[in-house]
Amino acid sequence: MFKATISITLRPSILDPEGKTVHHALTNLGYDEIDQVRMGKRAEVWIDEEDEEDARQVATEACEKLLANPVTENFEIQLESVSEEEREEATA
Amino acid sequence: MFKATISITLRPSILDPEGKTVHHALTNLGYDEIDQVRMGKRAEVWIDEEDEEDARQVATEACEKLLANPVTENFEIQLESVSEEEREEATA
Repeated sequence: MFKATISITLRPSILDPEGKTVHHALTNLGYDEIDQVRMGKRAEVWIDEEDEEDARQVATEACEKLLANPVTENFEIQLESVSEEEREEATA
Repeated sequence: MFKATISITLRPSILDPEGKTVHHALTNLGYDEIDQVRMGKRAEVWIDEEDEEDARQVATEACEKLLANPVTENFEIQLESVSEEEREEATA
């Protein structure tokens, strides 16, 4: 089994109102040293495949078909092999 | 300048309806090999500090005071030193 950690980020040219709001709130809390904030999403997907390339293919298709908007977002996939026990610990 | 990449994840004991919905949608698309999905947030925060420990302190306080809910969420911070040019590329 593989665990895919997927980072979904806005493309650089896309405005990020959520990030601007968080930046504004942090400035109000006194954190003037914070220069910029960009918000994104993160998905952890457990995939029951033996082969890493098969798991990567499933994760890529999940991003392309459902998780990421190809016009406004980029995605990046990190795969790690996990045991059944580690999978169960994720929702202990 | 440092870029903090912050991963905010639900604690294992917390139900994740968004993840369940995504899992269900992926199963409907035919991805039976996907076993579980957990959704989370990701923030990229650019911090104008010279010292890595100072930058980590700012990122940790931002999580504790604003970004993460201490009852339901965990957070993890990865820091990397970036140049002014790399910071500008983030919103090209």
